[in-house]
Amino acid sequence: MTVNTLKNAAGRSVPLEINGQPVIPFMGVGKYKPNGRRYAPPIPTCSDYPDDGNKVVGSLAEALQKCGLRDGMTISTHHHLRDGDLVSNKVFELASAMGVKDLVWFPSASFPCNNPIIKYLDDGTINRIEGSMNGPLGRYVSEGKMKGTAVLRSHGGRVQAIQDGEVKIDIAVLAAPTADSFGNAKGTGGTSACGVLGYAKADSVYADKVIVVTDNLIDLPCFPMEIEGNYVDYVVVVDKIGIPEKIVSGTTEITKSPDRLLIADLTALFLEKSGILRDGVTMQAGAGGTSLAIAVFVHNILKNKGWKCRFGFGGSTKHMVKMLEEGQMGYILDAQAFDLDSVASIEKNASHIPYPVFNAYNYHSKGNLTSMMDIIPCKVPWSIR
Amino acid sequence: MTVNTLKNAAGRSVPLEINGQPVIPFMGVGKYKPNGRRYAPPIPTCSDYPDDGNKVVGSLAEALQKCGLRDGMTISTHHHLRDGDLVSNKVFELASAMGVKDLVWFPSASFPCNNPIIKYLDDGTINRIEGSMNGPLGRYVSEGKMKGTAVLRSHGGRVQAIQDGEVKIDIAVLAAPTADSFGNAKGTGGTSACGVLGYAKADSVYADKVIVVTDNLIDLPCFPMEIEGNYVDYVVVVDKIGIPEKIVSGTTEITKSPDRLLIADLTALFLEKSGILRDGVTMQAGAGGTSLAIAVFVHNILKNKGWKCRFGFGGSTKHMVKMLEEGQMGYILDAQAFDLDSVASIEKNASHIPYPVFNAYNYHSKGNLTSMMDIIPCKVPWSIR
Repeated sequence: MTVNTLKNAAGRSVPLEINGQPVIPFMGVGKYKPNGRRYAPPIPTCSDYPDDGNKVVGSLAEALQKCGLRDGMTISTHHHLRDGDLVSNKVFELASAMGVKDLVWFPSASFPCNNPIIKYLDDGTINRIEGSMNGPLGRYVSEGKMKGTAVLRSHGGRVQAIQDGEVKIDIAVLAAPTADSFGNAKGTGGTSACGVLGYAKADSVYADKVIVVTDNLIDLPCFPMEIEGNYVDYVVVVDKIGIPEKIVSGTTEITKSPDRLLIADLTALFLEKSGILRDGVTMQAGAGGTSLAIAVFVHNILKNKGWKCRFGFGGSTKHMVKMLEEGQMGYILDAQAFDLDSVASIEKNASHIPYPVFNAYNYHSKGNLTSMMDIIPCKVPWSIR
Repeated sequence: MTVNTLKNAAGRSVPLEINGQPVIPFMGVGKYKPNGRRYAPPIPTCSDYPDDGNKVVGSLAEALQKCGLRDGMTISTHHHLRDGDLVSNKVFELASAMGVKDLVWFPSASFPCNNPIIKYLDDGTINRIEGSMNGPLGRYVSEGKMKGTAVLRSHGGRVQAIQDGEVKIDIAVLAAPTADSFGNAKGTGGTSACGVLGYAKADSVYADKVIVVTDNLIDLPCFPMEIEGNYVDYVVVVDKIGIPEKIVSGTTEITKSPDRLLIADLTALFLEKSGILRDGVTMQAGAGGTSLAIAVFVHNILKNKGWKCRFGFGGSTKHMVKMLEEGQMGYILDAQAFDLDSVASIEKNASHIPYPVFNAYNYHSKGNLTSMMDIIPCKVPWSIR
């Protein structure tokens, strides 16, 4: 198979087409100007939905059938349940049983718990994954065993692709720790709390059909509604959407390496001496062992100086929660929670706010949060995650 | 001028075209099925917006020019400042001075303070109003003096028309009691607090260009962000966006008429005896003197029975706030605040939640809130506002 390629602005040969769709080679920072329009989902009507707002159906299989699941569709899921996700694999198990072929799985990320997906790549249920592929899944793809070509997008690139219609989601299957019968849903509450659902917002707004899957159905209204029921077609109640002890990633421990601790200490000191760290600073902390150590050193400096960080953008961790609760951080804007302290904080701290990734990383937007942040230690090249 | 008409399902002769655009005659409840797609605004790019997120420009005139204000454009505003609005008229004063003609003014409602708009209808700056027209403005229109044809939509109909692209907003000029330099904005804070901005959400999301006008610029981030900065092009800081004592409508006083009070009492009693009023009921209260009296009688019944209303949908008033604070209402979902007690409540009560009208009345949605509510006394035909 011959692939037409072009040298992009970074000097790399890139294909002009992937999976039959044209791609735009990188032209240099800020050089590409989109001139199209956002994706426009079909117009729904209330007359197709129950008057009493109750959208609960009997099973995920029934919901998928009612959504018209068929060959070639794109199915999206989110990764907030991390390695404890019990919903994503189930979708393809059902699809395989129904004999549906050539689906595109479009997760916001995948984890080791998703390794069973290999089975559905093998049996033709799934044509390809557009999303992160690690471990055995990554090896499978690297070895050329996947029928379609893998596409890995950044968090913001994924949202942009949805918004711009580069990826059209036919059915979004969104696991929700708490939901009501209308489909309003949130990341807190119940036995599978993951904190926030910031990566699922774009899917819910732009997908043609949206299924909310919950193990904690509460009386309407479910607030704060991170997923708005107005975008939801069906609600499915299951026994368990996630394995609680695996929902937390385990990547939020501070490094114990003396070398890395020294690097972190020096980095915080550099931030202070250079004036980057100051009263009113804004920051992200990330979940790597070294960047977390930087956050702790930064916290100490803020405390000693009597300074306050205006907001921290999460991935939230207990270290950011500590800054918030001890008064050195004004807000945590949170797109995903990395540990249980963060999940608890979202429920109790009014200044710990769910914040869709939509508003943070999307380059096809009228500006975004990350461009305005002063410190993003997890992006420092030597950061070890 | 001959107008082609058709008899609709309600037996009325209606035109097939208004202002050159085709209209769909009423086909009967739930009969019309939309088959198009939502309106798709142009794709923006971060590279066109300042890296530091600061979108403040020198004046409203400058912002309008940067938005490319020109003949024939549709300009939207919201009505949350009610009769104290100092922003809407200013837009057309500036447009008139610039010599711009044939604009469409698309407010979510108009008030007596907007009577100066007649000047701009007279001088050709405005072709027509699509929105509410009362008092002198209404008389002007009724007398056939407006160049274009008036279109009055319901609150939900307005949102639906925006979403479906029946009305394409070129520039939304959104007054905001509090905003940050990125354009995140809310209805509380400052000296012109109006509570919430629930009627401005659709405008902010679907307009090609969005200008936020505030008299209370605060440090980023402005939370809760009812208007998301990601949709905002420019921020303008002015001395005053509204006259505080006129922002509250004055329509939230309970009737003093003994007859109406009796009717209200009997209505509440009927609701109880019929089982419509019960533990877990949901309701709207409205702002008319009689319907407010019903709310007060309903509150007494809830209190005596030990029942709790799951949520009340606002237009919020001090009577709903009392129910919330005394424990007979779980949440107030609030699209507009009718009095100062409500404005204060939004700031202090976590269960008093800004709720875009988008999610409440839009019939081209996957269900909506109003269809699920048990009691909407303001819709009782004899209600006197």
